[in-house]
Amino acid sequence: MLLRLDHIGIAVQSVNDALGFFETALGMKLDHIALEEGGRTAVAFLPIGDAEVELVEPKDTDSGLAKFLAKRGEGIHHLCFEVDDIHAMLAQLKAHGAQLIDETPRVNASGMQYAFIHPKSAHGALIELYQKPNQP
Amino acid sequence: MLLRLDHIGIAVQSVNDALGFFETALGMKLDHIALEEGGRTAVAFLPIGDAEVELVEPKDTDSGLAKFLAKRGEGIHHLCFEVDDIHAMLAQLKAHGAQLIDETPRVNASGMQYAFIHPKSAHGALIELYQKPNQP
Repeated sequence: MLLRLDHIGIAVQSVNDALGFFETALGMKLDHIALEEGGRTAVAFLPIGDAEVELVEPKDTDSGLAKFLAKRGEGIHHLCFEVDDIHAMLAQLKAHGAQLIDETPRVNASGMQYAFIHPKSAHGALIELYQKPNQP
Repeated sequence: MLLRLDHIGIAVQSVNDALGFFETALGMKLDHIALEEGGRTAVAFLPIGDAEVELVEPKDTDSGLAKFLAKRGEGIHHLCFEVDDIHAMLAQLKAHGAQLIDETPRVNASGMQYAFIHPKSAHGALIELYQKPNQP
């Protein structure tokens, strides 16, 4: 089951440049900047209510994010829902014929499980699902 | 000031087709479908937590939404923040040199004020700001 909209990822060429708009002009608060995906992505975390905007900058040239930027330019890249049971959700999606980028969840450094649905199945939207580490 | 992330708009060719994924496969709950923008846009409202996914289908061929679909295909179209004072926010953005699609807010049928920031100023993201009718 989907629990909440967790974040929106915006693909940018440079996190620092983009903060000139999102932090300075729009007045969002920067929580922190981190290297994710084993150093392949720089992410600026900008909390808003109980959700977040994430500015994502590729640090490589061959990731999906780098290819998105090369092909479409900067812009909204993905949205992420928190789910209560990511395995059940992936099984439900497969049962309905949805194409998944991750058939089984990936796990990040803090134990969070996440997986992406292919935009082909989601009307062009890249959708991430994630489950908090402390849930079953 | 930004208060919260209100919704994500996803541009689709057909709201009814797209519900096959978002409602049936992903398990979101459809609140209602309405014609907005004077009949130029069909919108399916899918609440999630205190936010919403809006599936938006153009009913014309010359709106920004119709042009987005023709050029880029289906996908995430915009994000919307609730603000406490939309006039102050637009003034703040202009003071920082941001390009606005709406220099002054539009008002919808229920008295809600809203305005769009140009994606050129927001690193490719189309951002809507809205203020509830009952606020100053």
